[in-house]
Amino acid sequence: MEMSSLRDLFVEELKDLYSAENQIIKALPKMIKTASSRELKAGFEQHLQETKGQVQRLEKIFEGLEESPRGKKCKGMEGLLADGKELMEEDAEPEVMDAGLISAAQHVEHYEIAGYGCVRTYAELLGEKEAVRLLEQTLNEEKATDQKLTQLAQKINIEAEEAA
Amino acid sequence: MEMSSLRDLFVEELKDLYSAENQIIKALPKMIKTASSRELKAGFEQHLQETKGQVQRLEKIFEGLEESPRGKKCKGMEGLLADGKELMEEDAEPEVMDAGLISAAQHVEHYEIAGYGCVRTYAELLGEKEAVRLLEQTLNEEKATDQKLTQLAQKINIEAEEAA
Repeated sequence: MEMSSLRDLFVEELKDLYSAENQIIKALPKMIKTASSRELKAGFEQHLQETKGQVQRLEKIFEGLEESPRGKKCKGMEGLLADGKELMEEDAEPEVMDAGLISAAQHVEHYEIAGYGCVRTYAELLGEKEAVRLLEQTLNEEKATDQKLTQLAQKINIEAEEAA
Repeated sequence: MEMSSLRDLFVEELKDLYSAENQIIKALPKMIKTASSRELKAGFEQHLQETKGQVQRLEKIFEGLEESPRGKKCKGMEGLLADGKELMEEDAEPEVMDAGLISAAQHVEHYEIAGYGCVRTYAELLGEKEAVRLLEQTLNEEKATDQKLTQLAQKINIEAEEAA
């Protein structure tokens, strides 16, 4: 792969995010099943729907760029989800598991905040206005999800602390 | 591994961060070597020194908890650094490579912001005041590094765009 321009890097990182989002869609059902808190389950379910919309936005951007979204496997997300899988295999009290799931999800959110932050900036420099608009929407959703998880953690971490 | 309390989760996530920081220390020299911009090289060098201090803080926390920092390999960080390694093997224009390195570093920073944010909250709930103080210091350093990278990106991304 030759990277001679910012546009090449932009396309590479969009592919990375496309792979990451699709990995998240595959991982979320097990997280929904493992969570005990009804609120956390509902939060993950909502995020699953949201993520599907984010994939569609990426597909729209690739169409506009006349590039294929495929051909890259995001190892960063693969590793993050492997950590989450390891957690779900542990023998944990339900409240402690929920606290761990929130932490795993916040690692995933921060990956996406970093990723969408970078590509949004590249899109601005490249004058790709439609891409800027779509990437900004997703970036705002990811930030909102992270904040919602922080709020939920305030309650669930206390329950985990009291479970001991 | 049994996780029956928030303290168990706290120790697990501290081990995760200890593994992550040590992986970063191993990875940074190649990033310093690959970077072309003098400012970016200097930024990475400074972060390498800072990271060594962050490892020492974690060791102090483990001592206070009478726990070992070892026994966990953070797969999330392994994946993030594998993505970075893949980037460094690509045939890229120097300015484009620098922009890509900044993006890789910001993914790493966001991993740490998520990780330290979670353990700092657990430490507060567990009444581990010294740990809160030390984790807060590191969290602030990570956020500052992320902001510095964003600033540097403003300049380097434009250079990458003009390199095309």
